[in-house]
Amino acid sequence: MNQTTTASLKPFRRLLLTGAAGNLGRQLRGALANWADVVRVSDIAKLSEPAPHEETTIVDLADRRAVMQLVEGVDAIVHLGGISIDAPFEDLLGANIAGTYNVYEAARKHGVKRVVFASSNHAIGFHPVTEVLDTDAPQRPDSLYGVTKCFGEALSRYYYDRFGIETVCLRIGSSFEEPKNPRMLVTYLSYRDFIELVRCSLFTNRVGHVVVYGVSNNPVKWWDNTKASFLGFNPRDSAAQFAERFPATAPGDSHDDPAQRFQGGPFVLGEPMEAKR
Amino acid sequence: MNQTTTASLKPFRRLLLTGAAGNLGRQLRGALANWADVVRVSDIAKLSEPAPHEETTIVDLADRRAVMQLVEGVDAIVHLGGISIDAPFEDLLGANIAGTYNVYEAARKHGVKRVVFASSNHAIGFHPVTEVLDTDAPQRPDSLYGVTKCFGEALSRYYYDRFGIETVCLRIGSSFEEPKNPRMLVTYLSYRDFIELVRCSLFTNRVGHVVVYGVSNNPVKWWDNTKASFLGFNPRDSAAQFAERFPATAPGDSHDDPAQRFQGGPFVLGEPMEAKR
Amino acid sequence: MNQTTTASLKPFRRLLLTGAAGNLGRQLRGALANWADVVRVSDIAKLSEPAPHEETTIVDLADRRAVMQLVEGVDAIVHLGGISIDAPFEDLLGANIAGTYNVYEAARKHGVKRVVFASSNHAIGFHPVTEVLDTDAPQRPDSLYGVTKCFGEALSRYYYDRFGIETVCLRIGSSFEEPKNPRMLVTYLSYRDFIELVRCSLFTNRVGHVVVYGVSNNPVKWWDNTKASFLGFNPRDSAAQFAERFPATAPGDSHDDPAQRFQGGPFVLGEPMEAKR
Amino acid sequence: MNQTTTASLKPFRRLLLTGAAGNLGRQLRGALANWADVVRVSDIAKLSEPAPHEETTIVDLADRRAVMQLVEGVDAIVHLGGISIDAPFEDLLGANIAGTYNVYEAARKHGVKRVVFASSNHAIGFHPVTEVLDTDAPQRPDSLYGVTKCFGEALSRYYYDRFGIETVCLRIGSSFEEPKNPRMLVTYLSYRDFIELVRCSLFTNRVGHVVVYGVSNNPVKWWDNTKASFLGFNPRDSAAQFAERFPATAPGDSHDDPAQRFQGGPFVLGEPMEAKR
Amino acid sequence: MNQTTTASLKPFRRLLLTGAAGNLGRQLRGALANWADVVRVSDIAKLSEPAPHEETTIVDLADRRAVMQLVEGVDAIVHLGGISIDAPFEDLLGANIAGTYNVYEAARKHGVKRVVFASSNHAIGFHPVTEVLDTDAPQRPDSLYGVTKCFGEALSRYYYDRFGIETVCLRIGSSFEEPKNPRMLVTYLSYRDFIELVRCSLFTNRVGHVVVYGVSNNPVKWWDNTKASFLGFNPRDSAAQFAERFPATAPGDSHDDPAQRFQGGPFVLGEPMEAKR
Amino acid sequence: MNQTTTASLKPFRRLLLTGAAGNLGRQLRGALANWADVVRVSDIAKLSEPAPHEETTIVDLADRRAVMQLVEGVDAIVHLGGISIDAPFEDLLGANIAGTYNVYEAARKHGVKRVVFASSNHAIGFHPVTEVLDTDAPQRPDSLYGVTKCFGEALSRYYYDRFGIETVCLRIGSSFEEPKNPRMLVTYLSYRDFIELVRCSLFTNRVGHVVVYGVSNNPVKWWDNTKASFLGFNPRDSAAQFAERFPATAPGDSHDDPAQRFQGGPFVLGEPMEAKR
Repeated sequence: MNQTTTASLKPFRRLLLTGAAGNLGRQLRGALANWADVVRVSDIAKLSEPAPHEETTIVDLADRRAVMQLVEGVDAIVHLGGISIDAPFEDLLGANIAGTYNVYEAARKHGVKRVVFASSNHAIGFHPVTEVLDTDAPQRPDSLYGVTKCFGEALSRYYYDRFGIETVCLRIGSSFEEPKNPRMLVTYLSYRDFIELVRCSLFTNRVGHVVVYGVSNNPVKWWDNTKASFLGFNPRDSAAQFAERFPATAPGDSHDDPAQRFQGGPFVLGEPMEAKR
Repeated sequence: MNQTTTASLKPFRRLLLTGAAGNLGRQLRGALANWADVVRVSDIAKLSEPAPHEETTIVDLADRRAVMQLVEGVDAIVHLGGISIDAPFEDLLGANIAGTYNVYEAARKHGVKRVVFASSNHAIGFHPVTEVLDTDAPQRPDSLYGVTKCFGEALSRYYYDRFGIETVCLRIGSSFEEPKNPRMLVTYLSYRDFIELVRCSLFTNRVGHVVVYGVSNNPVKWWDNTKASFLGFNPRDSAAQFAERFPATAPGDSHDDPAQRFQGGPFVLGEPMEAKR
Repeated sequence: MNQTTTASLKPFRRLLLTGAAGNLGRQLRGALANWADVVRVSDIAKLSEPAPHEETTIVDLADRRAVMQLVEGVDAIVHLGGISIDAPFEDLLGANIAGTYNVYEAARKHGVKRVVFASSNHAIGFHPVTEVLDTDAPQRPDSLYGVTKCFGEALSRYYYDRFGIETVCLRIGSSFEEPKNPRMLVTYLSYRDFIELVRCSLFTNRVGHVVVYGVSNNPVKWWDNTKASFLGFNPRDSAAQFAERFPATAPGDSHDDPAQRFQGGPFVLGEPMEAKR
Repeated sequence: MNQTTTASLKPFRRLLLTGAAGNLGRQLRGALANWADVVRVSDIAKLSEPAPHEETTIVDLADRRAVMQLVEGVDAIVHLGGISIDAPFEDLLGANIAGTYNVYEAARKHGVKRVVFASSNHAIGFHPVTEVLDTDAPQRPDSLYGVTKCFGEALSRYYYDRFGIETVCLRIGSSFEEPKNPRMLVTYLSYRDFIELVRCSLFTNRVGHVVVYGVSNNPVKWWDNTKASFLGFNPRDSAAQFAERFPATAPGDSHDDPAQRFQGGPFVLGEPMEAKR
Repeated sequence: MNQTTTASLKPFRRLLLTGAAGNLGRQLRGALANWADVVRVSDIAKLSEPAPHEETTIVDLADRRAVMQLVEGVDAIVHLGGISIDAPFEDLLGANIAGTYNVYEAARKHGVKRVVFASSNHAIGFHPVTEVLDTDAPQRPDSLYGVTKCFGEALSRYYYDRFGIETVCLRIGSSFEEPKNPRMLVTYLSYRDFIELVRCSLFTNRVGHVVVYGVSNNPVKWWDNTKASFLGFNPRDSAAQFAERFPATAPGDSHDDPAQRFQGGPFVLGEPMEAKR
Repeated sequence: MNQTTTASLKPFRRLLLTGAAGNLGRQLRGALANWADVVRVSDIAKLSEPAPHEETTIVDLADRRAVMQLVEGVDAIVHLGGISIDAPFEDLLGANIAGTYNVYEAARKHGVKRVVFASSNHAIGFHPVTEVLDTDAPQRPDSLYGVTKCFGEALSRYYYDRFGIETVCLRIGSSFEEPKNPRMLVTYLSYRDFIELVRCSLFTNRVGHVVVYGVSNNPVKWWDNTKASFLGFNPRDSAAQFAERFPATAPGDSHDDPAQRFQGGPFVLGEPMEAKR
């Protein structure tokens, strides 16, 4: 572990970011610098060079001992790590199920009291697109990947009720530079809004255990964050600016396609994958 | 039927507008030109001259055979036709009840899969003005006219559940050039917002069967469209600009007047009318 | 009209029963004798000989003038009349839509303040069998017949809100001597319980406008009358005694059959019928 | 009582303001001048000199006879009077419980039909900060003071149901020039928005009996006024402009402090006080 | 205070019963003997001779000091004391408002952790008879008496949230030997069921703060205790046995009488009473 | 695998029971004989000798290939297998998480369309004992064991939404010969009622994906199965007969013990266990 010590007056002493090499992890690395003296960044994949305030470390989340070490000494965790697409169950079992358990168990052992957990819209992807969900909507996973996110939501609930570890479960929509298809006009979360959502999740004094949808202020809405408005997340971006790229069409027969009928989009068409062996 | 053929790249090939000679129908005719190659416009009353892209036809909606012909070949229907004020039951029975049945039965026979149905706030007019309704609020018709709109909502639900014909039921407030009285400061739907609402109703890929209130973003709100926000209807106008025309007064005894107590306004004072014979 | 005068101390002076020649009408005729001095019974079909306390009259409910006369002088109406199976829309339009309007309009003109209206489970037949409905459940008609019952529920709501005419809408399940098929083990309403339900509907001091499911205390429940328990309807019979006639089978592929999936049973498979001409 | 007569065309002839010497009362005095010909202002404490359109009077609200006289001849009452912090029960019993009863009883005797009642967020202060409340949220008083506000809400409900006196219960957050601590970034109600809320409460034609949260459009939200949106209260200010004064900190152990966990803040730590005798 | 010491193995060492001279208090005195070694019984009115296990004491609940003494040394309190009919506000202010405060404040000071509080159906009497209430139904007091019961419910909520004193609020219907009028066929609570309800309220290990309707298993139901079913209250009696005394009548015009329309019955017609001076 | 062939007219041809050597598995083995020609029983532990209609097989559910073979040829699965107490996460990961996945994946591959899944009250054990839960209550696992049951509920939901495999999730209370402690007076499920619940779960024609509490008709109720009443589960037993074994006591300080405050009882006090290595 490449460890760095800095002294400053930032609100957090040391924050941990898992999944730092991923799409969203890379966005967040910069922002975390403003919030903590030290940012510990980890991934199973190669990470770019650490900044002076950073500690980088390569960790397989399925490795309990390594995770225990990873979490030591941090004030809060932004847990983006794990597999973020559908995958063979064996892989999900390690990275997402055992991995998330390892993170929470390490948090318990080391007294960490706040986790920001990257859940996913795929935890509720089998709700129809004609339904607007609030943050109490029942889980409807659209894939094994989605099922592992449901597991993470249940697990973190347990660690809150039993051990007082607070978690904000971010049911992230589609966070990319820009929407890539018509569905993402609805599910788009700009990078700026994503960072703001993490900021609210880290800094709100008390969050208990709460679910919040990670979505910008887009014209079409499937998700309603009213019950989580105590987080103070007020997105500033909107997919409206990209609407012209995906001109409206008459609803054709394709609208009976499950990928059109359910919020999860193409995920709802997947099938459990065989392990690559 | 004055039929026209055009070739273009607009999203719809042919749209049908019923009630095209009415107040709202006239507003919509222009807009439809942007969305469809051919716009078939019909009314029982005289219609203005067809534009090059239009087909005009005089039809009594109570005439099953004529409606069957009217619907042939269209991709979607904006059904504003029928009587839009209180009237003798016999008249409503033909124009609104049999008429709406004829439209849906023709849609079924001709394979039309999307209808935008002009319901009305008078389907819920007997809710008190001190209650804010969401789109699941139970029907409370304030007149026989309102009862026929309840019929249309139930009928279209049947055609959706049984035959997959999708409908957006627009519970239209008061859509005029400007609010005409204090009540309309609440119920006002600008023409621009009305057109936008029809646009959302036609172009949203899937709508299922849904109710939405047709109302601008007015300062006082009786209706909450949150559950229909998957339509992407975001009104841009507000009655606020007209507020000064109706200066505030102290609430007097008139506030016990049923026309003041219920959302339907003066409609709640009507009585079934005798047929004009 | 064969009119009879009797003098007694029964709670009602004169009750009107429409649809008296039908299955349920015949059951009820006897019971009404206990509740009213005079029972006016009507149907469009032939009625059996009047008892001394009865007035019998053949009336087409679609005939406004005849209905106006029929209702004169009664204290309350049990409105079972109309078509009780799916039928061509033209027929339903007369018997069920105009017919029910005529009954309410006559009630208004003659000052009748209580109606017991035979709605039907087919007003909600497109709810799945895996859902338990309370009396606020939204309408989901499973047939044009069901749509006319929705119309009757909306119409009677209007007459209550506007004119104070109280109605109990009975969403009757399957009221026969005995269940005829497995579905009826769930929807069975014994004749005795049906009569008790009408009794509660007539005698409860205030009912406002309320929906109640007409169903016995069967082992399997789709419907929950808790919100209507102010009526005091406590069924005494159960389909359990008939369960052995329909031995349990393993759920086979037939369970994807819409007639198995939805509460309305085979009704959900019907299609609008052509008028018999 | 220093009584003044003016003649004009303002909407109200005479408004009564109790608690006029308090923080909010002083803010409101000026605004009332625009709405009524005569403004009667009262307090138990010394009031500043009356303006020409004002009548000032010193009244102990616990004095029934004095209150009866105070209310005579007014069109509506803005009842801010009473004790607005925690206090010995004996004091609350007089000022807030008997005092509010006296105001309503005087309103009944003198035919006043509209009261704007200053309830408080302390009527719901024992809800956790991780819950967003709508206006139907159950009472959870955080102090004896809060209990007296619950009393006022129940009492005014009675006067509405029984005598038709309409009341808007304002559950006021923290209305000061500026937020004084981090909690007030959530509960802040600017003076301008407070005045606007009273205006809406007085001028909305019908209000029935309704609860509304008195809070500006702050970034973090604990309270949702959707169900009261028929009042047309649209706050224009926000605590966002003051956010920098209270820089975000990492959530520390203090977040288990009840004053951090519950919406009422430090009030939840109070204990019943002994009377000062 | 006539104090007695006994030694035994009953579950409670000492129970306090206030209002012991009243109708329900007299019923309960006997039962309490089975549950506690010592039963302290008090009232403002004369009490019958104490049994060997009883301590009797005359106390005005409005007398803080006397109540403080009364509560000393008890394990739990059954608080039936106070005025149980409508009365001048001054009287209610002392007996019901200050009195209930005194009881809770004494409980806090003496470490008593369980109170069974006699609230009343008159706390919700302005709900219509056509509505079935669960235990979360909002308060709708039908009288000043009812308002004081709302106060007691709010006050006890505060003492629970703040000091952990648990309370079961019994919204008692009509507890007499027998129903005295048709309304009581609905609201009847047999003495036996009343005693059982108090037993459940005292012995259930944890009750938090809960509302429960005190009503037998009558045929007509306005109240639904499902949400309080963790108390294990299963009434064994029913008003059905008394139904014949109040023969059913046709609903006449009297049904517009507020005393017929609202659950509170004749209470809803009362008016605030002048103090008897 | 000890395979047997019988020919008969029982409703199911072949049923699979996992966890057959456990407490509940042993109860069920006998009953299944009445419902299927062949009963395949499996466990990881030793099973008693097969009856003529039985096939017995020892299978580790974590072994994908073995499970695939186990499921082949069955019509429906009663899945009681896995660890039914708290255990080290590694063990739960195999037996309950991978094990349940293997069962569903095998069901999908072999076309099995009905699973009865033994979930547990420990999936909701962190709800307080003063709350009555319906079958939509959110998960609140009280242990890692409970978290794995939440996983099973989410996973089975996915297999229903995606592949149409129906599941009844039984949130079983305490199913033993007799209640063993006061908590079990509430959570008791008699063996007879357990068997009846499985019967309803297997034979109801359509179940979709549903949660139901496995509990007898005990006097104290924490769980309400109304929304699952379409299953026809009507328990016949009650813990009332055992009540005298656990005499009521005064609620003492122990009521602050989490094991007394939460429905999960002592489970809520557990901590993640280290693997036994």
